[in-house]
Amino acid sequence: MKKESKGGTALVPSPVVLLSVRGKETPNIITLSWAANVCSDPPSIAVGIRPNRHSYDMVKDAGEFVINIPGVDQLEATKFCGTKSGRDNDKFAECNLTPVQGSKVNAPMIAECPINLECKTTKIVPVGSHDLFIAQVLAVHLDESVLNESGRFDAEKSKLFTYMPLNGQYWAIGDKLA
Amino acid sequence: MKKESKGGTALVPSPVVLLSVRGKETPNIITLSWAANVCSDPPSIAVGIRPNRHSYDMVKDAGEFVINIPGVDQLEATKFCGTKSGRDNDKFAECNLTPVQGSKVNAPMIAECPINLECKTTKIVPVGSHDLFIAQVLAVHLDESVLNESGRFDAEKSKLFTYMPLNGQYWAIGDKLA
Repeated sequence: MKKESKGGTALVPSPVVLLSVRGKETPNIITLSWAANVCSDPPSIAVGIRPNRHSYDMVKDAGEFVINIPGVDQLEATKFCGTKSGRDNDKFAECNLTPVQGSKVNAPMIAECPINLECKTTKIVPVGSHDLFIAQVLAVHLDESVLNESGRFDAEKSKLFTYMPLNGQYWAIGDKLA
Repeated sequence: MKKESKGGTALVPSPVVLLSVRGKETPNIITLSWAANVCSDPPSIAVGIRPNRHSYDMVKDAGEFVINIPGVDQLEATKFCGTKSGRDNDKFAECNLTPVQGSKVNAPMIAECPINLECKTTKIVPVGSHDLFIAQVLAVHLDESVLNESGRFDAEKSKLFTYMPLNGQYWAIGDKLA
């Protein structure tokens, strides 16, 4: 038996990412869950951003940004950057996060996040409450803490987590299934 | 220390969904990982589909489809529907999955999947190897097996899993963090 309800953002589990962008004066960070890989060639991601968020104009004007994937050590920063506005907070400073200049785009990468994707916006698609920024991934940075002896991504070492929009909870990654 | 490499679809963890669609003769199912919630109002999702996949024209022509979220009991079906073509396989039959007509769209929901999202395409955006289908979610169905006593989504009971495009592995959801 199933319970039917009206439409909702029920696609679970969802990724959670920290988007960092340069600003006119200080860089900013926003937490986003409306985010995905969307195309293999050119490798592209998409993120949904509300036009009334402080970072919206910064992301639009810059035309480039970094998607930083947090591990559990960045869980508190993830929550902070999703609930506080960059209007009132220097999020890098308040979360003790370190900005490192990207090599392909003029945007700060978050040093503490184990995975960083340098992105350049290619299209902005209005959807409704959110605009969808489609962006090409120009470079990927993987911290050695998430690499195995062969230099490849090791999910077990990565301590990633996921988000459930259906109830607002964060959940760790568990066991390998296949 | 980080290792830099060229751009890639490195946004992890990613959701994995089974998209079901009616066909001219038989319905079909495809496994997709390029998928996300992208907008809260109207609630909308986006999925990236390669134009050369058998289901592409079916999804485009139908204008509506269902996003089915598998639990670990549907892991084998998820792998099957991601590697076999509907040209040669009746995937509902071969995976022992049961089609149930949607209530808002003319598309088959997969009864065995604990969560179903009925979707209507609103935009198709070419990105590169994949076209991005943006669709409004018209209804959500939650199986009682994933609901708590109050009738709300219970992530612990859901037995969901996630996908790591960086190495092609499937991982279970682990412990609640927050």
